[in-house]
Amino acid sequence: MTDQQVREWVSSFDTVLTDCDGVLWVGADPVPGSPELVQRMRQLGKRVFYVTNNSTKHRREYKTKVDKLGFGGDLDDIIGTAYLAAAYLEEVGFDKSKLVYVVGSTGITQELDDVGIKYLPIGPEPVSDTLTLDTIKLAPVPIDPRVGAVVVGFDIHISFAKILKGASYANLPGALFVATNTDEQFPMKGTDQIVPGTGAMVAAVSTAAGRQPVVLGKPSKFMFEIVQRRFPGIQPARTLMIGDRANTDILLGKNCGLQTLLVGSGVHTLEQTRAWEASEDPEERRQVADHYIDKLGDLLDRIKDM
Amino acid sequence: MTDQQVREWVSSFDTVLTDCDGVLWVGADPVPGSPELVQRMRQLGKRVFYVTNNSTKHRREYKTKVDKLGFGGDLDDIIGTAYLAAAYLEEVGFDKSKLVYVVGSTGITQELDDVGIKYLPIGPEPVSDTLTLDTIKLAPVPIDPRVGAVVVGFDIHISFAKILKGASYANLPGALFVATNTDEQFPMKGTDQIVPGTGAMVAAVSTAAGRQPVVLGKPSKFMFEIVQRRFPGIQPARTLMIGDRANTDILLGKNCGLQTLLVGSGVHTLEQTRAWEASEDPEERRQVADHYIDKLGDLLDRIKDM
Repeated sequence: MTDQQVREWVSSFDTVLTDCDGVLWVGADPVPGSPELVQRMRQLGKRVFYVTNNSTKHRREYKTKVDKLGFGGDLDDIIGTAYLAAAYLEEVGFDKSKLVYVVGSTGITQELDDVGIKYLPIGPEPVSDTLTLDTIKLAPVPIDPRVGAVVVGFDIHISFAKILKGASYANLPGALFVATNTDEQFPMKGTDQIVPGTGAMVAAVSTAAGRQPVVLGKPSKFMFEIVQRRFPGIQPARTLMIGDRANTDILLGKNCGLQTLLVGSGVHTLEQTRAWEASEDPEERRQVADHYIDKLGDLLDRIKDM
Repeated sequence: MTDQQVREWVSSFDTVLTDCDGVLWVGADPVPGSPELVQRMRQLGKRVFYVTNNSTKHRREYKTKVDKLGFGGDLDDIIGTAYLAAAYLEEVGFDKSKLVYVVGSTGITQELDDVGIKYLPIGPEPVSDTLTLDTIKLAPVPIDPRVGAVVVGFDIHISFAKILKGASYANLPGALFVATNTDEQFPMKGTDQIVPGTGAMVAAVSTAAGRQPVVLGKPSKFMFEIVQRRFPGIQPARTLMIGDRANTDILLGKNCGLQTLLVGSGVHTLEQTRAWEASEDPEERRQVADHYIDKLGDLLDRIKDM
């Protein structure tokens, strides 16, 4: 694209949704140029939302991080899947005299606190070394009839007891069953270690439950719809979705009719995109973004005259 | 069926594969009449194999149980999925200088011992209360390059560490990835408790791994094929598969061209079968057994004159 084309493209959107890890930062460090680019977008009059599938943090923790790394923005600009879980239960009119069983961490329970929804205690639920299938059949785990919903997010303390309770509560009559997201693994470069994502926990609970959850995070349309409902006037065609992971970020954009930009600073590469472009599988071709850039900050030079 | 038809039917098979829990016993108690029926089948010259998806016990433990409850039979007549895992690794020529990573219990490791295959230690692998995604990225879990296969069976100590290791080892170059079975849950009557089955553990590891395992237990044909290979001369059309669960037991029979008998003393009922019979989904109709009986022992009276 010529600089002129880039400027025309930037003028074609007024709302930006951007993924965080792999786009804005990697771990504790900002991707060089990303903070400046985000601030520049705001100067150009664009509203920037941070959209992340991470369910382990309350929005306040993200606010601290975006401030510290120089991205700026308000608490309202942050849309995480812990927040989405609370928002979803609110929107479907969850009976607040009921409780939520949470497979997850304080990110989720703090967001539930904010909307006045109660939950069973979270944290490690180890099984005793002597527990066996025989003992569990003889002494069933008590299932609290006050529970009306199960929320599954990332839970590093996932255990047999949690899978059992999640599946049992998801099968109570009328129970809601919600997953924050279904990311299979976290990207880990330079090691043989594969770190399981929320999708592994969701798969365990939903398999035992014999029931599929409502999935809230990218690429589910709910993530964009909640932004639309809470900030009226946002037009999909004038919204840009930026991400590093095609099957969540870019697909969210495609699912919602947004413009899309893939950056090469995280999970997926330009080479991967080219392979999808050539694929005969329409689902793979759908993962191809409208535009690609190695890293977000590379845009800065192209729009300095705007 | 008339008594004459029942006798003709019994004459039409000379090998019997029978599921255990829900057919022969429920928990610690034999289903009334089942021991006598199994013994009667042997008197009539039929070879009886016990086939179970349970991966938590070595065949010796089953031998003790069938003896104690009056079913009889030899160690060789017992085909469990822990045994299948060892048999599978043997059959595909697993390099015995390599190790197996086992998500499972001593049922599996004792069967591996029998064939001289080594494995990493099993047992609880809790994660520390302070482990977070950030710390695990900074200090990756060591992945032992000697591992050449992952076997996932029932593991009541399933944990984040085990899912991580299972997924990581399943992604080493050339690694085998085997699941004993994929039963979603254990039947539990009279309680709201849903007890997760091996399928929940397999779903967690395979989701994180981004890879589907080879599944050995019912309804996978491997379970019958191993019987055929180890006991030459068994003819599928002259073999009866007895079970209480249509989607494992009866489907195994259908997948292998066996005769099938559903008993009502376990998971699935006659009513359920009638619903499948009327279904438009061919996969559901495939779960309908050739014959149905409330409990195995009810056959005794019908064949007393044979």
